[in-house]
Amino acid sequence: MNLLNHIDSPEELRKLLPEQLPQLCAEIREYMIENLSHNPGHFGSSMGAVEIIVALHYVFNTPRDRVVWDVGHQAYTHKLLTGRRDLFPNQRTAGGISGFPFPAESVYDTFVCGHAGNSISAALGMAIADLNTPGEADRNTIALVGDASISNGLAFEGLNNASNNPNNLLIILNDNDMSIDNPVGAMHRYLSDMTTSASYNRLRYKVYNIFKRLGLVNDKRKGLLLRFNNAVKSLVSTQQNIFEGLNIRYFGPFDGNDVNKVVKVLSDIKDMKGPRILHLRTVKGKGYKAAEENPQAWHAPGNFDPETGEKIVASSSAPLWQEVFGDMLVRLAEKNDKIVGITAAMLSGTSMNKMMRKFPKRTFDVGISEGHAVTFAGGLAAAGKKPFVAIYSSFLQRGFDNIIHDVAIQKLPVVFCIDRAGLVGEDGVTHHGLFDIAYLRMVPGMTVASPMDIESLKKLMITAEGFAAPIAVRYPRGKANGNIDANDDIESCLEVGKGRKILCNDNARIAVLTIGQVGFDALSAAGKLHSEGICVDVFDMIWVKPIDETLLKHIAENYKAIVTVEDGVKEGGFGTAVVDWLSTNGYNVPVVKLGVPDTWIYHAKVDQLHAECGFDSEGIVQAVKSIAAGMPADGNVKPMEE
Amino acid sequence: MNLLNHIDSPEELRKLLPEQLPQLCAEIREYMIENLSHNPGHFGSSMGAVEIIVALHYVFNTPRDRVVWDVGHQAYTHKLLTGRRDLFPNQRTAGGISGFPFPAESVYDTFVCGHAGNSISAALGMAIADLNTPGEADRNTIALVGDASISNGLAFEGLNNASNNPNNLLIILNDNDMSIDNPVGAMHRYLSDMTTSASYNRLRYKVYNIFKRLGLVNDKRKGLLLRFNNAVKSLVSTQQNIFEGLNIRYFGPFDGNDVNKVVKVLSDIKDMKGPRILHLRTVKGKGYKAAEENPQAWHAPGNFDPETGEKIVASSSAPLWQEVFGDMLVRLAEKNDKIVGITAAMLSGTSMNKMMRKFPKRTFDVGISEGHAVTFAGGLAAAGKKPFVAIYSSFLQRGFDNIIHDVAIQKLPVVFCIDRAGLVGEDGVTHHGLFDIAYLRMVPGMTVASPMDIESLKKLMITAEGFAAPIAVRYPRGKANGNIDANDDIESCLEVGKGRKILCNDNARIAVLTIGQVGFDALSAAGKLHSEGICVDVFDMIWVKPIDETLLKHIAENYKAIVTVEDGVKEGGFGTAVVDWLSTNGYNVPVVKLGVPDTWIYHAKVDQLHAECGFDSEGIVQAVKSIAAGMPADGNVKPMEE
Repeated sequence: MNLLNHIDSPEELRKLLPEQLPQLCAEIREYMIENLSHNPGHFGSSMGAVEIIVALHYVFNTPRDRVVWDVGHQAYTHKLLTGRRDLFPNQRTAGGISGFPFPAESVYDTFVCGHAGNSISAALGMAIADLNTPGEADRNTIALVGDASISNGLAFEGLNNASNNPNNLLIILNDNDMSIDNPVGAMHRYLSDMTTSASYNRLRYKVYNIFKRLGLVNDKRKGLLLRFNNAVKSLVSTQQNIFEGLNIRYFGPFDGNDVNKVVKVLSDIKDMKGPRILHLRTVKGKGYKAAEENPQAWHAPGNFDPETGEKIVASSSAPLWQEVFGDMLVRLAEKNDKIVGITAAMLSGTSMNKMMRKFPKRTFDVGISEGHAVTFAGGLAAAGKKPFVAIYSSFLQRGFDNIIHDVAIQKLPVVFCIDRAGLVGEDGVTHHGLFDIAYLRMVPGMTVASPMDIESLKKLMITAEGFAAPIAVRYPRGKANGNIDANDDIESCLEVGKGRKILCNDNARIAVLTIGQVGFDALSAAGKLHSEGICVDVFDMIWVKPIDETLLKHIAENYKAIVTVEDGVKEGGFGTAVVDWLSTNGYNVPVVKLGVPDTWIYHAKVDQLHAECGFDSEGIVQAVKSIAAGMPADGNVKPMEE
Repeated sequence: MNLLNHIDSPEELRKLLPEQLPQLCAEIREYMIENLSHNPGHFGSSMGAVEIIVALHYVFNTPRDRVVWDVGHQAYTHKLLTGRRDLFPNQRTAGGISGFPFPAESVYDTFVCGHAGNSISAALGMAIADLNTPGEADRNTIALVGDASISNGLAFEGLNNASNNPNNLLIILNDNDMSIDNPVGAMHRYLSDMTTSASYNRLRYKVYNIFKRLGLVNDKRKGLLLRFNNAVKSLVSTQQNIFEGLNIRYFGPFDGNDVNKVVKVLSDIKDMKGPRILHLRTVKGKGYKAAEENPQAWHAPGNFDPETGEKIVASSSAPLWQEVFGDMLVRLAEKNDKIVGITAAMLSGTSMNKMMRKFPKRTFDVGISEGHAVTFAGGLAAAGKKPFVAIYSSFLQRGFDNIIHDVAIQKLPVVFCIDRAGLVGEDGVTHHGLFDIAYLRMVPGMTVASPMDIESLKKLMITAEGFAAPIAVRYPRGKANGNIDANDDIESCLEVGKGRKILCNDNARIAVLTIGQVGFDALSAAGKLHSEGICVDVFDMIWVKPIDETLLKHIAENYKAIVTVEDGVKEGGFGTAVVDWLSTNGYNVPVVKLGVPDTWIYHAKVDQLHAECGFDSEGIVQAVKSIAAGMPADGNVKPMEE
């Protein structure tokens, strides 16, 4: 690490000679392999983008010149070069640096980049702002966007507006032919076609001479030449240059893993005026054989042996929530041929790949297009299909209007399977799925449920299958509790709007109402409390909407206080629904809401975050104790039974 | 009306001879002019789309073949031809038919279409569903999308996925060069360029012969021919064919106001396989001179004299909310050169055109791209600008994730000026702006306010100008109350999180808490109640978040009951915020929430809808009386003072 160890900022990088850059790239790769092997992160895309990032900081005057990342999976090299090399081993851990670029963390991180496709819009704002601010017009803004992100609607809106006002935005398309799962859609095929045409170079010269004779092109007129190149490209590749169609000058494709080539190209086009797009091809996992050969598996591989490339998997028999969903969906789809599955670039993450494997014609991965995924599901439902849409909670925010306008207003029977609902841990603030209960609860005619355990998820999916209106089922990241083999009776469903009491004590005066997996924390808390002589009853409400009014009435009339527990925002969520119901129905029972407070929560392990927010079992214990302490002696507190 | 009067369904239309179609189109125009002159609606686009719609129902076997509308401004002809001719005079009125196609209204209306850009995604769902359903594979699905809608991100996501799975979707691009305001963006220029190239036809033949000699094209190979045409087009027009780039066969442009031409083209391409796009050029306002000459003003002209084309404007001195906003923004921008204005195809609707006129370089209309508008504003703010983003409440739902991810997480000082917040009246269920309070209140660090009157809006904008974090100001459609000239002191702002008592009675035991313009209804209700011997105090809370805790504490401790009033959803809105606060802080005051109930509200006049929802002044009176009736005699009810 002769070079890397001495680079504490891009200024030092820029002192290197061009011929030293390949060695630096090699050192960065070595460092990342060693680190990421025991502190897991996004490996494949980071390995592929080393040269682009080195070249960017080498050619541009960062941080005055701004690089806006998109998603930022690939940005580790950027962190290593911008003074965070020594902090890197603690990335994604509590108190450590974030796994994504984050403005509050570094002056080199220009914009938040957890959700795909935002870089062009944000960078365009910066580029236009600079051009209209005295003394700032010479600043460069570069959006670095991946090939999967660029087919997102927001990215397109950015592209569509990029030539609309004067600006010198440079868009770099890091095309590694692969997002998390295989990229989909016409834009992807388009990018492949553009670069794989073998006949292109051969033909160009031949056609060029003919066009010149016709007077259509001319060496001196560069605009015409560019147009000519694109016309030939489009003819040969059966495709057209979309970017030129959008009035953005296109350069490429070039080899994005050749650092000196990238430096040269960037230097060439750096000072050109107007919006430009530079298309660079990179290899995901570049420099690590196992990852190059199987990029999908090495997107975020977890721990591995850096020497052998063998993955170190912690053995556990408990299935992930997504796996329970994926298996159950296949079982339902086997019996009901109306069922179709939809996801948005989360095939393996949601386990929708199980459905894809079994029923490829009935399974749709629409790429990073959450809005389209929802509206497309609406269309399928309007034509008689039964769509199950599986999307992470945080990303489903992109489909909020589509849920309202394209599904709920029409009462279409779409099932939303909301994965990664709640705090997700290491991916941090942009990825936590905290708002879904609150933003779905307000939508008329929407039904919202959350399972506490494996059996409930299975039953909820059966309920959803037979449900004639929009319904959402939310479940968290991680291991699911319960018996995976339970409820193999596929006919068994849950009654809509009916919760259940899961812990009953004779003398309990405090009711703990939970939604989802946090029910287990409440049970655990109840056990601890019981050992200290405090009895609570625990209710797994299952349904946020419609909420179980019969059960709430019973609780309101039979308990002295209520504690609500949820893995989501307290402002407008499940606890609020309980409080709202009690108020509307004239009950005065005091309620303590536990959940995610009204502030941004960053990265750490999931259980650390639950504790930080105060809704782990210890948090529940403390909340109940505080209530009990304020109660009259004949209330909740009773002597321990022998 | 010899023809139109006898057409009660498309089946009768299909019995006409092709040569009768122009007369039918003329009759439809006559009918629309007469009707829309006194029952206002979307005039310009409807007049332009007559031939396309007649041809669609003539060529396709509707309703078995499905036409999916986009926005549906243009769909009046569709209503007239599908059994709703006699209901048309009551469109957009209480109990009458909707101004947009709406599935619950007719079997010919296939999907909800109030928000732009959803037709391709929805129609794609239907087309794929049909192809995979026994006996349905022969059904046709047609998405009819306008030129402004197609540059929306959702439409692009639909296009990007259109060739991804086998389907026979036909997309018709109704290109009238004009959405509500002038269309913007590269896609628009692209469409213009494609159709205005004079040299295209002249050159095509010449180049074709040369290409043929080169062996690049061949008469027998149609695919190559198509490619050839597009390559030539792209060369000549300086543009590329984006649709072919996305793997969708492109036909056009053709004259969309030539009904027999459209019938012929549709018949030709109807049974082709695979996704296709047909580009039709139409003239907005076609057949009505005044509208053709000034299409922007005739988008939705209100009442007019059908003979003279003179608009009948009800005289009123009260300004619209949007005008107060627009004027104030210009005044602020004159003093603060960091201020920039952004809207998304709502320049005149939001009065952002005032800013555009004065500061064209600091004003950005990004087209129908709400998500981009928000993220772009985030970028501008990150580079030191002070963006005011004016978008209708209902459309801002499209930017929900952008608000969270691209603005709020970074605490960027973007001002959201949310127009048309609350029930909007005639445009109905897809256009009501009911969710914004609820969906913004849950976002950490978001500040949310709503002015009751003109003066408050001005002051809130001044407050927002100096505010260093995201802030939203919501105001409704229609006339603003108050003195337009008040508060000309541009330095005067409102204290964040501080509400005010606007009606005080000595003996009041009931507090009415309002947010926004409904404060006037509360005052009016208080007057009526007073005359019946019931006293209430009225509080204009102004701030939903942070809510005025000092004032709430005072109210909780000094009143026996609370009524909350808001023009938005009760589920999770302002009333919920009050209930939540009271519960969290241990107060037991009963609360009655008035607002929009948890169901879909359709179209009627705004005041009819307020009454229907029970939060007009009469609704407030009734709510207070019910509470008072249940109170002890020493409570709220007191003898009228002489």
